[in-house]
Amino acid sequence: MKKVAVIAAGQTPFGTHNGKGMKGLFQEAVEDALASVDYQIPLNKTNEVYIGNLGAGGSQLGNPAALIVEHLGLVGVSARRVENACASSGFAFRDAIHAIRNGADMAIAGGIEIMNDLNSGHQRYWLGVSGDTEWERTAGATFSGIYALMARRHMYEYGTPREALAQCAVKNHENALNNPMAQFRKAISMDRVLSAPMVANPLGLFDCCPTSDGASVAILVSEDLVKEITDDPVWVLGSGAATDHLAIHDRQKITELLATRKAADQAFKQAKVNISQIDFAEVHDCFTIAEILAIEDLGFFEKGKAASEVLNGETSKRGKIPVNTSGGLKAKGHPLGATGTGQIVELFKQLTNKADKRQIANASIGLAHNVGGSGATCTVHIMGKGV
Amino acid sequence: MKKVAVIAAGQTPFGTHNGKGMKGLFQEAVEDALASVDYQIPLNKTNEVYIGNLGAGGSQLGNPAALIVEHLGLVGVSARRVENACASSGFAFRDAIHAIRNGADMAIAGGIEIMNDLNSGHQRYWLGVSGDTEWERTAGATFSGIYALMARRHMYEYGTPREALAQCAVKNHENALNNPMAQFRKAISMDRVLSAPMVANPLGLFDCCPTSDGASVAILVSEDLVKEITDDPVWVLGSGAATDHLAIHDRQKITELLATRKAADQAFKQAKVNISQIDFAEVHDCFTIAEILAIEDLGFFEKGKAASEVLNGETSKRGKIPVNTSGGLKAKGHPLGATGTGQIVELFKQLTNKADKRQIANASIGLAHNVGGSGATCTVHIMGKGV
Repeated sequence: MKKVAVIAAGQTPFGTHNGKGMKGLFQEAVEDALASVDYQIPLNKTNEVYIGNLGAGGSQLGNPAALIVEHLGLVGVSARRVENACASSGFAFRDAIHAIRNGADMAIAGGIEIMNDLNSGHQRYWLGVSGDTEWERTAGATFSGIYALMARRHMYEYGTPREALAQCAVKNHENALNNPMAQFRKAISMDRVLSAPMVANPLGLFDCCPTSDGASVAILVSEDLVKEITDDPVWVLGSGAATDHLAIHDRQKITELLATRKAADQAFKQAKVNISQIDFAEVHDCFTIAEILAIEDLGFFEKGKAASEVLNGETSKRGKIPVNTSGGLKAKGHPLGATGTGQIVELFKQLTNKADKRQIANASIGLAHNVGGSGATCTVHIMGKGV
Repeated sequence: MKKVAVIAAGQTPFGTHNGKGMKGLFQEAVEDALASVDYQIPLNKTNEVYIGNLGAGGSQLGNPAALIVEHLGLVGVSARRVENACASSGFAFRDAIHAIRNGADMAIAGGIEIMNDLNSGHQRYWLGVSGDTEWERTAGATFSGIYALMARRHMYEYGTPREALAQCAVKNHENALNNPMAQFRKAISMDRVLSAPMVANPLGLFDCCPTSDGASVAILVSEDLVKEITDDPVWVLGSGAATDHLAIHDRQKITELLATRKAADQAFKQAKVNISQIDFAEVHDCFTIAEILAIEDLGFFEKGKAASEVLNGETSKRGKIPVNTSGGLKAKGHPLGATGTGQIVELFKQLTNKADKRQIANASIGLAHNVGGSGATCTVHIMGKGV
């Protein structure tokens, strides 16, 4: 299997970008990627572009991929939009890997979402209908409600304390203090999380990620081309992807995401590394319970055992397995289609020792975990430096 | 480069499917594909699913790929939606080819659109915003208006007679008489086309494809797996894809689609065949002028010279290069996201000698040409039998 290198990754700040459209915002992410490295990138060698996006937006609602590559000065290049709800750009990244292994010299994988401009799109509507529509939505179950059910069951089965959920938010806000691209750069206390207005019991306001505008991008090249650009790229070691029943009532358990387990299993097999070799991870914490599920399902902790580790600080920057050093969806922000490649940006920054104050010492292998819906779609990617 | 085989292809009838949702409709296309061959297909070996779809619909508007594979009994399998306006499933097919060349055993590429259920989705709205939104749509330019501009300019520059456009519709309706899956199985006369109500001068009602519900699917397998299934599959010989400026005012010419030329160039190079070896073609005739542009841009005829050939019957079933033996978008129907793999269905049927009354004698290489927007996205695929 051909090797795939990631030679740059960048993003816009996640947050509110009043009045900006898809073209300009995506361009900003590409410019940030180009500026993230000290070598020149021959972007005109791009053969394929994959753009993760849930509800389009800005102005171009259908066929946006062509418009975006045109604006990048890459008119003519093969491009498409990839949609898998909040896992859209995780899949865009996966399909870009396929393209490189298939013979492309260079591919761009990115994601974009504009959620805060209510005049221009349907993003919030579409977000609402990315869980199961036939059973869950018609019964009034929103994503916060569905994840609240998972949280309640997890607490019931494993005695998971409410504080362990809250600690994920506290830790992610702390991490985001050092991420200039994060939406919330503001510490929050455990008390504040516990006393916040309730959204869906037991999940309060600070257990839920925000709505965000933003774009993110990763530039992938073949083993042949990378030699002309840099001696020391980041490598894609493994890619895994899976689906699951959309409606959670169809699943055997609601205290795990089976798609995460399957995608992780594929990614680890392909990467030929084991869980103990992972130095840090970006996981899909759309709600705090989702971070607990993720770190268990990925295999960092046994099912039901993550809570105490989280409370002991083992997922903090100084812990056994730093999780969401970027701030995660909770504090970095969650512009749906941009989240998957946004995680790749953090892996790239950590692996190239460019994460500034949030840098983990000796980070050589990282993992990114992106989820769509309430676990219906999932990708896991493992990337490494000097390996 | 690994070889990719297509071992089955099928579709629902294109037309109106009152009350059916995405799951059931896609399943029908898969069942048609499985029934299209006399060998067993181990669908459980599927590693990747690519579903072309513009506006979702039925019920599941976001994250539909997971729901569709769940309904197929393939829960867990990696799947995503691919969106490039009306070229969505052309790109789904291309990305499935990449997956097989990347090591997958089996991949499903398909497309689906539900356009006629106005209660359930946004398809017509999304269709309307798949051309350029910033300049064209705000000025009132619809797709029929944009293609009418192309037609007028083509008539002005090359003396293309109105009748040549009409003849594309007459011929495609004639072809559809023999396609039980076609939306319009009804001959139309030249007079009827010429005297039809005007939509956008010079394009009348019969120069425009209909709105349609439908699904289509192709099953792709690796060279290794195909040996266990059949000795005589259809092979993918070449895949090409390109983009262009979304707004036609940005293009050098509006009498050609540059994306078609670029995609064709790639596909022919990869296939190592030349235009004279193509026995038949399915081209994207969303409007009659689009068929004229396509057969010129693909290289079957010189620019400006297609009209007389069309009027001489050279694109009919008995001509030099039969075009749209299925009935094309005009008469077979155009369920946006399902059109690209719908064309692959026709290639598969012709190449496996299963096109019944519309069968072309000795068809060994066919070409499929799928366009999104007014030429902003395009794929070209070349497939062959016994080659």
